[in-house]
Amino acid sequence: MAILLCITQWDPVPWLERMRRLAPERDIRAWPDVGDPADITYAAVWKQPAGVLKDLPNLKGIVSLGAGVDHVFADPALPDVPIARVIDADLTSRMSEWVVMHALIHLRRQRLYDALQRERLWRDIRPAPAAGELRVGIMGMGVLGQDAAAKLRTIGFSVAGWSRTRRTVEGLETYGGDALDEFLARTDLLVALMPLTPDTRGILDLSLFRRLARDGVLGAPILMNAGRGGLQVEADILAALDEGTLGAATLDVFETEPLPQESPLWLHPKVTITPHNSAISDEDAVGRFVLSQIERHERGLPFETEVDRRARY
Amino acid sequence: MAILLCITQWDPVPWLERMRRLAPERDIRAWPDVGDPADITYAAVWKQPAGVLKDLPNLKGIVSLGAGVDHVFADPALPDVPIARVIDADLTSRMSEWVVMHALIHLRRQRLYDALQRERLWRDIRPAPAAGELRVGIMGMGVLGQDAAAKLRTIGFSVAGWSRTRRTVEGLETYGGDALDEFLARTDLLVALMPLTPDTRGILDLSLFRRLARDGVLGAPILMNAGRGGLQVEADILAALDEGTLGAATLDVFETEPLPQESPLWLHPKVTITPHNSAISDEDAVGRFVLSQIERHERGLPFETEVDRRARY
Repeated sequence: MAILLCITQWDPVPWLERMRRLAPERDIRAWPDVGDPADITYAAVWKQPAGVLKDLPNLKGIVSLGAGVDHVFADPALPDVPIARVIDADLTSRMSEWVVMHALIHLRRQRLYDALQRERLWRDIRPAPAAGELRVGIMGMGVLGQDAAAKLRTIGFSVAGWSRTRRTVEGLETYGGDALDEFLARTDLLVALMPLTPDTRGILDLSLFRRLARDGVLGAPILMNAGRGGLQVEADILAALDEGTLGAATLDVFETEPLPQESPLWLHPKVTITPHNSAISDEDAVGRFVLSQIERHERGLPFETEVDRRARY
Repeated sequence: MAILLCITQWDPVPWLERMRRLAPERDIRAWPDVGDPADITYAAVWKQPAGVLKDLPNLKGIVSLGAGVDHVFADPALPDVPIARVIDADLTSRMSEWVVMHALIHLRRQRLYDALQRERLWRDIRPAPAAGELRVGIMGMGVLGQDAAAKLRTIGFSVAGWSRTRRTVEGLETYGGDALDEFLARTDLLVALMPLTPDTRGILDLSLFRRLARDGVLGAPILMNAGRGGLQVEADILAALDEGTLGAATLDVFETEPLPQESPLWLHPKVTITPHNSAISDEDAVGRFVLSQIERHERGLPFETEVDRRARY
């Protein structure tokens, strides 16, 4: 009975130290120091190398160290055991901070005021729409999307949500998979918070951008993506900005991360970039959550946040 | 029975047209075209020239066209009639947009990420505090302060409020006039939303800044002022930024407006400037509110938003 941390792209050492501190009584190891593979009953993973998990004969479950699990499914030899993802109130709240801040920056034209300040120009730009005049559309109405929707509405924005399977949320205009066009046609500011799956890969493309509202109070519609970089076609974002189909884009995630130096997104005047930190998590809280799920499973209960293997989220 | 619009610094013509459109049956005039002074029963004012109102023998009331009334009291010959100020839901909501946006920009270090983007640098800066770790303190707990406090709390900030007379707001930590030091000592980000009165003029000075919390999650404390420029001593803000007593300042209001070209605030790297537009109002809504107050008063009722002449707000 041991837990294997199987982490790439992050430094595994602080994770090993954290998990051992949170559960000093447990046998916790970090790949590639697996020891006897037959000892491992659970794996806590972030972008595990392909094929590592399939060689663990007694593996009973996998817990993703992030809210998304597309990185888990990237392993073609993924063993057939339950997979859980992290849902953490702190992570959710931070994602909503990012969404509300960037929605307000667009609404209030803060980028323009920044530019005016650099020129020492005192100008009050009109018309100045109120939040209620801006129609925000959230794609992905899971825990993150619903929290962002609620907070945007408190600030005054007009919010609607779209998800593959339509969700009923009190007081909120919601759309299901087949009503995507209708949802897009009423959306001035699109916020992508959905999971990356075979169905959503590349969904944020020129054809989708062209279906957004053309009559919004800020002019051309705006894209914000804090879901996954694989949702977006970056060449199409650039084309849409340049042809005026999009008025601006705020991106936290990218096709390749870190965003390569040569990407034209970096210095595009209509693009805001944050380094995939919209919803960083309190790592101790994540560690405690992972341990709590493993303890549940050991007691014979299912993971609370078990992923649907077919839908891949 | 006529209404006099007594407006300087704004263009009075659109206001005259607006008020005549909203109340076509009324006799509405704009200073300096007063006609017979004995006709005027109410004045709707924005920075009225000193002494104009005292020459109206039948004046029954004055309504400020803005939420603040310091500009009304600047008239040393102000007649002794009731004074009302505008309270408008749209204006309140816009002020809270400004407060929430700029509080988040500080919390999330968006200025630093803007600078990193210009250098094409992908860096995730830690520690990254969550909203709950930042102690926001609002000075001025009227309609604007209470709305901002509620919205900041929804986003997750730790909020407290201070006002001359302590207000009880459910679930909110509040302080009264004599507990200012205690309030400041727990405040990492100070938001000034109070009225400008003889008591509050210049209150935002070096001595006050030095009493703010020194142990906040963002380092040095931060000032945000969207109240009135007269609350702040700009030389002290600059001194406090330069000595590290303040970490940053976001200012919508200034001692002199428009902010003079030569002000060192414009290009200070730790200062964000917006052109006194934090809470612009829907001017039709303001016009309707002014007319509703005059109609009330004509029916023998007091103004709903009558100002306390002694407290001056």
